Amino acid sequence: MKASLSLLLVLVAGSCTLYIPKSGNRVPQTLSRGWGDQLIWAQTYEEALYWARSRNKPLMVLFHLEDSPHCLAFKKVFAENDTIQRILDEDFVVINLMYDTTDKHLSPDGQYVPRIIFVDPSMAVRGDITGRYSNRLYAYEPQDLDLLIRNMEMAKKLLKSQLLA
Amino acid sequence: MKASLSLLLVLVAGSCTLYIPKSGNRVPQTLSRGWGDQLIWAQTYEEALYWARSRNKPLMVLFHLEDSPHCLAFKKVFAENDTIQRILDEDFVVINLMYDTTDKHLSPDGQYVPRIIFVDPSMAVRGDITGRYSNRLYAYEPQDLDLLIRNMEMAKKLLKSQLLA
Repeated sequence: MKASLSLLLVLVAGSCTLYIPKSGNRVPQTLSRGWGDQLIWAQTYEEALYWARSRNKPLMVLFHLEDSPHCLAFKKVFAENDTIQRILDEDFVVINLMYDTTDKHLSPDGQYVPRIIFVDPSMAVRGDITGRYSNRLYAYEPQDLDLLIRNMEMAKKLLKSQLLA
Repeated sequence: MKASLSLLLVLVAGSCTLYIPKSGNRVPQTLSRGWGDQLIWAQTYEEALYWARSRNKPLMVLFHLEDSPHCLAFKKVFAENDTIQRILDEDFVVINLMYDTTDKHLSPDGQYVPRIIFVDPSMAVRGDITGRYSNRLYAYEPQDLDLLIRNMEMAKKLLKSQLLA
């Protein structure tokens, strides 16, 4: 009885031994990458477009890099802003990308970061929804959150419904 | 003194209040999606190809769905297999995808799941590296792990080095 219990314990322990890299245990990467752990992020642009079309919601594409101080500063205020997180969760499809896609429409004036591009569920890139910097039209800084919220409201007015109106 | 301390506490508490959806707190999604939390997963196919080329490592593309019983059964043995996880970590670039890319080379005989396609760092899809099912050439089942390990070893013999030999 004791022996079989020990054997059972060994088997249970054995089946739970998972691979650990030589460099040590890693924290699993999240799809949010710190931009909002409660949001449901699309993984790929194809997936994001499919969700936007099928749910008839605008898409926010957020380009960033993990080693960019501008991105880190903006990410902090973005992730902690309750209004932005709530609107994105309820009314948007979201994706954050560290590598540019092959679709050049997502970099109308270059591939800088951070860069936020809105896409209508009709799949039209909303080049008209811009930030306040003329040399980087789709860039935002930490003090630009109110403008970003206004731009999100603009993106929610879908192109299709404007055509129908 | 007490009042300002209380105010400070309120401010600190306030700045830490993050958005919680009405439906309740969500567990952040990981890029691994349970296929190996210690592996460094590429997010998009473009990113994966870039890593494969720049690191001269073969790429494993793993197509799956979270509500497929075949995928869940295969995922469990895949994630718990120390050999597979170690080889992938040391010698491969890995990506798991739930939506097909626009690249039709990644679905040579259909879009079923689970499906594992190897890509050489020269960007050639290794259509020659197949599993044991003639009607789904790139499918694997839980009992096929040894074959998968042999196929991974085959993918590690890069096409370019074969041409040079």
